[in-house]
Amino acid sequence: MAVVGASSNPRKSGGLLFSNLVNGGFVGDLYPINPGAKEVFGRQAYPSISQTPKKVDLAFVALPRDAALGAVEECGRAGCRAVCIIAAGFSEVGELGKADQLKLKKLAEQYDLLLIGPNTIGIIDAHTSMMGSFVGYPRWEKGGISLFAQSGIYNGAVMLEFMNQDVQRPGVMTSLAVGNKVDVDEIDFLDFAGADPETSVVGLYLESIDNPRAFMEKAAEVRTRKPVVVLKSGRTAEGARASASHTGSMMTDDALLQVGFKQFGIARADDEREFMNALRTLEMLPRPKGRRIAIATTSGALGVMSTDMLVSEGLQMAEFSTETTAKLQEILPAFIPPANPFDFWISVDLKGSKFAHEQGLEPIFQDPNVDAVIGILLAPAGAAFDEFGSLLRRLRDKYEKPFVVVIYGDDTGKKWLEDLEGARIPVFDSTRAAVRALSLAIQATC
Amino acid sequence: MAVVGASSNPRKSGGLLFSNLVNGGFVGDLYPINPGAKEVFGRQAYPSISQTPKKVDLAFVALPRDAALGAVEECGRAGCRAVCIIAAGFSEVGELGKADQLKLKKLAEQYDLLLIGPNTIGIIDAHTSMMGSFVGYPRWEKGGISLFAQSGIYNGAVMLEFMNQDVQRPGVMTSLAVGNKVDVDEIDFLDFAGADPETSVVGLYLESIDNPRAFMEKAAEVRTRKPVVVLKSGRTAEGARASASHTGSMMTDDALLQVGFKQFGIARADDEREFMNALRTLEMLPRPKGRRIAIATTSGALGVMSTDMLVSEGLQMAEFSTETTAKLQEILPAFIPPANPFDFWISVDLKGSKFAHEQGLEPIFQDPNVDAVIGILLAPAGAAFDEFGSLLRRLRDKYEKPFVVVIYGDDTGKKWLEDLEGARIPVFDSTRAAVRALSLAIQATC
Repeated sequence: MAVVGASSNPRKSGGLLFSNLVNGGFVGDLYPINPGAKEVFGRQAYPSISQTPKKVDLAFVALPRDAALGAVEECGRAGCRAVCIIAAGFSEVGELGKADQLKLKKLAEQYDLLLIGPNTIGIIDAHTSMMGSFVGYPRWEKGGISLFAQSGIYNGAVMLEFMNQDVQRPGVMTSLAVGNKVDVDEIDFLDFAGADPETSVVGLYLESIDNPRAFMEKAAEVRTRKPVVVLKSGRTAEGARASASHTGSMMTDDALLQVGFKQFGIARADDEREFMNALRTLEMLPRPKGRRIAIATTSGALGVMSTDMLVSEGLQMAEFSTETTAKLQEILPAFIPPANPFDFWISVDLKGSKFAHEQGLEPIFQDPNVDAVIGILLAPAGAAFDEFGSLLRRLRDKYEKPFVVVIYGDDTGKKWLEDLEGARIPVFDSTRAAVRALSLAIQATC
Repeated sequence: MAVVGASSNPRKSGGLLFSNLVNGGFVGDLYPINPGAKEVFGRQAYPSISQTPKKVDLAFVALPRDAALGAVEECGRAGCRAVCIIAAGFSEVGELGKADQLKLKKLAEQYDLLLIGPNTIGIIDAHTSMMGSFVGYPRWEKGGISLFAQSGIYNGAVMLEFMNQDVQRPGVMTSLAVGNKVDVDEIDFLDFAGADPETSVVGLYLESIDNPRAFMEKAAEVRTRKPVVVLKSGRTAEGARASASHTGSMMTDDALLQVGFKQFGIARADDEREFMNALRTLEMLPRPKGRRIAIATTSGALGVMSTDMLVSEGLQMAEFSTETTAKLQEILPAFIPPANPFDFWISVDLKGSKFAHEQGLEPIFQDPNVDAVIGILLAPAGAAFDEFGSLLRRLRDKYEKPFVVVIYGDDTGKKWLEDLEGARIPVFDSTRAAVRALSLAIQATC
């Protein structure tokens, strides 16, 4: 691959992008194209894309807007397969930009190029350790999520926030920012991600859907193999107006889209964090087999709230078997009958935290009437026990049931969170986040 | 005050509670009542509540359930003014419990006692440094929020999570967990909090509202002086059932409540975190004067999403004055007209982050058409500038406009967050959290 406009100046986009590609350890050949440089970040530079030792598969064009058209034409002539244009200033900014974008589209057709952008922050692909973004990720977590975004959001600062966490980072294989979406679009991406053996979950942040029917059909087809989660903004007239200035998007009737998402089982997230929560939940967990949810909680109030939310999401409160009920009764005083939500703080108090969690959780996982479990676990110092992590890991692995967790506490809570790192158990900071993530996971699979 | 059942054993509720009161530095006299002890945590113990040197205003009863009735009667005879009963096992667990709870209620009437509980985790009151909870708070942030909860949630592990944060802790004056609400109820609390000069915002977590009409009228009256935010669970039949086992609550028709909240301008939060977010927003910020919101963003996508959310919340996108538009145009290329959301990342790139933030934010604060500002600010390393904190503080203080912020980034984002500590600017981790907090703040005040 090549970067047209690669430079040694890390304050320029071509410098940032190239240094991130070098530091990311891209597995293939990497050519800086810069007529004024001999080498860039230790790599031999070439004056033009037509002079590279091997033919270029993918060229990033990191030049100012007005130089982009010429550069794309050169890439086409040099036999590149795909071009990613970084510069903004096309269809999102009026008539002249629209005209130039049309020219880009024609060039793509003429030279049979896959065109990504313009107006993009780049592409990250963990298959090949290709960190092709302005933003560097010293700690990218490789995993089964593949992302398409009509925005730089998921390989810019928002993703930086997630990848910079100490715990619960999402595992992402590919993150493609398509910008104005002149050529490569959501349907192409569904083709790619649907076929990619290392992609287990597909997420799309969309500001427009050019052909809703074709999109729904393709997504429904992919969904038979892998879950698809969509975050579609521009829902309102005002939002659509903002989207037009952002990515030159046209408004799509949102009520119609909503019907389509529902009909085809495409989960729709409502904001940028919920979207990533749903994706990492799907990536971490075994597939839900149904909608019957058990809540095991050491907070009565959060049990009530999460019950309200589950039911409002169209999920069902599981009915425990008589066997489960009998086992759960063992850790409660006789005057408190176990129910779902199963509130067992009193048992933490009376029997000790380790015993209460062991005896309070496992029967619920064993119950065939339970399809998925939400654990809402309070972690004040008095609830601490050393085996917390190993207990939850064992339950997660032994029963292969979807299991999401909310933890509230102080240092004990932090410790619990750390103990779950790598356990493939998604942890959330509120009941709403946990319920929505599980609900979206179920919508995308059941 | 006194703790009946105070003990030196920190594994017992009476031990925990008493040690937290001692460590919290309660400003008044504090008597442990324990016939088997000479002293408890360094304080002289008394065999019964009738033998304390001074009459007790408030007695905590930290004895097992079956001893509670007798203890309350003794407190009544000894002339206590108020009693807080910790033990569970009353109306939330069936007929015997209900009968005993009725007896408690009668004792309260007989002795003219204010009764709090049973089934509670306690009371925290920062006026008097009274940390009367099972959970200790080495770092309680004192402030203008007063909380009533039919649950231990806001002086248990959930509050621990908030008070254990390094930044953005909510400032709380009083947190009253009423448990089964046998006597002191939400209307009494509204009377107290409405009159308390140190309370600026009132929050109520409710599982039941015994007299909805009286509650709405009282809340509407308090609201003329201070905003009221409600978190009411048991919205669904399943949630109400869970609430019955938790606090012995009866279901109230939620659709009717919703109409009442709307009619009387009581803001209603949807989950435990959103509730605290709304309260700390109201506590930190000047009162919103209207619903015209400006979004200043360095993420185009988050600008679009937050626009959708704002409009869905019934808020309006402000229309910038021609003066503002002209000033904002100065930092954008001529081909990009400024709009609301005002997306100025390109200016960070072209003009430098400090200049872009200074020139991009201040005109919006100056605009008389803008009632409140949401800043969605990306913080990758390239956006760092030293004056971030001082700039935002200056804008917050100079213009006295509600201002909420979302930050996404890596270490730069953490630094920005720290730089805002103490600035009375609420910061959130997602657009939804910020928009909802601002929306609830506006519902509670406009």
